[in-house]
Amino acid sequence: MASSMKDLSKLCVHTLTTKPWGIEACVKNYSEVGIYGITIWRNVLENKNLNEVRALLDDYSMEVVSLCRGGFFPSVDKGKRDSAIEDNLIAIEQAAAVGAPLIVLVCGADGRQSLEISREQITEGILRILPAAKSTGVKLSIEPLHPMYAGDRSAINTIKQANDMAEMINSDLVGVAVDVYHLWWDDTLKAEIKRCADHDHLFAFHVCDWNVPTTDFLNDRGLMGDGCINISEIRGWVEDAGFKGFNEVEIFSDKYWATDQKLYLEKIKQAYLTKT
Amino acid sequence: MASSMKDLSKLCVHTLTTKPWGIEACVKNYSEVGIYGITIWRNVLENKNLNEVRALLDDYSMEVVSLCRGGFFPSVDKGKRDSAIEDNLIAIEQAAAVGAPLIVLVCGADGRQSLEISREQITEGILRILPAAKSTGVKLSIEPLHPMYAGDRSAINTIKQANDMAEMINSDLVGVAVDVYHLWWDDTLKAEIKRCADHDHLFAFHVCDWNVPTTDFLNDRGLMGDGCINISEIRGWVEDAGFKGFNEVEIFSDKYWATDQKLYLEKIKQAYLTKT
Repeated sequence: MASSMKDLSKLCVHTLTTKPWGIEACVKNYSEVGIYGITIWRNVLENKNLNEVRALLDDYSMEVVSLCRGGFFPSVDKGKRDSAIEDNLIAIEQAAAVGAPLIVLVCGADGRQSLEISREQITEGILRILPAAKSTGVKLSIEPLHPMYAGDRSAINTIKQANDMAEMINSDLVGVAVDVYHLWWDDTLKAEIKRCADHDHLFAFHVCDWNVPTTDFLNDRGLMGDGCINISEIRGWVEDAGFKGFNEVEIFSDKYWATDQKLYLEKIKQAYLTKT
Repeated sequence: MASSMKDLSKLCVHTLTTKPWGIEACVKNYSEVGIYGITIWRNVLENKNLNEVRALLDDYSMEVVSLCRGGFFPSVDKGKRDSAIEDNLIAIEQAAAVGAPLIVLVCGADGRQSLEISREQITEGILRILPAAKSTGVKLSIEPLHPMYAGDRSAINTIKQANDMAEMINSDLVGVAVDVYHLWWDDTLKAEIKRCADHDHLFAFHVCDWNVPTTDFLNDRGLMGDGCINISEIRGWVEDAGFKGFNEVEIFSDKYWATDQKLYLEKIKQAYLTKT
């Protein structure tokens, strides 16, 4: 177990965690309760003037941790692979515009081809957008997703695969996002977290919990303490490996989205301080 | 890819695949269409005279491949662990009674304790029932389950973990069941299948498909060809490793259970011959 959280200084909340809120409500409500880390999902930027968003973030002293999300590189269709590159280049521009130092990549998969081919296309995709990342200084983090998403959302399903890919690409702009939801079951997790950090590839750390039972493949994540993940132990591994970044609360939950979001934000704070 | 299936001689159907049918209907309908391999789920044995079930199986020349299922060993509650042992001993008696040479173990997990402790309790449970297995000659197969079941159904989530456990227990009665549904995403699968067979631990091979998208955690499995699993390639690895047993069709599907089961059995035969 890691030592208990002492304060909120390393707490970041993903805007999708409080999905009913737009970017203004997220910024105002987070900062009002002492949360100054924010990861911005691109849906809240639609039809927004990004200069105004950046000014809003500055006005409320918010620190943007990441932009979610790029990726979805693989497809059997070359045209779709090219479209994905275009979309990722836009994401890099958006990240630079709002001051996000990092983009999380949900890498994608296409069930009509092998996982190996999808992984090759992911590598190719990252290499194609790397020049834009370099010119803006925006980093890219490969997020391994739970194996239950291997058919459609990501062909990167273990932290080992993400580490392998980041080491092969070998750029100080390309690393790994560790999310306890996707990786908690893996008995190599502790060792691979250390390997990741030893290569300076540990770019982000996401927390939530695994409900028992889980009833939906996407939107039944638990608040820390609701489920069975050894969150505090994994945070200890991440910190022991040298990570000093934010603990990002990323919860997709139809259940919590249906509740009062200000009360929910209080629950998130308490769960962060006592169950993370 | 493995070479195409030539006939139905290695086709086995799990009774739960045709859930609306009792044991009599399974036996009669399977044999009527030339399917003589059957894996019996214990629900169809409830309130049955097992000598009569065995006579029925003999009358229709059915070969019992496995009994499903034992396991569910871990619990934070010692009383529940003891109850699980009792239930597994009953399963061994049932297997012997109906002529099943093998019991599939869905090993269990308890989200209130670590996966490591659950795995220790699984090993302990198997060792406790091993004398009964020896006295009856009934084999036990550890079935690694998909990581999405790590919270409640199995703390054995990779074939490597199953191989490790079988090698540690080191009995010719304890091996591994390979199910493509649980393991297809694992990039060590080919190597671990070979390792499993090299230790004479490859006891069973189960097939179905992974639907894209999958909508239910238990009962949305696909018929071979419906989804994205490289079934034929994996069967090739299993056969190349020396496995000569049945290909067991194990599909839990609310969708298919709602259809005419005789028509469904024809679809299973066609999918077996062309998509497996």
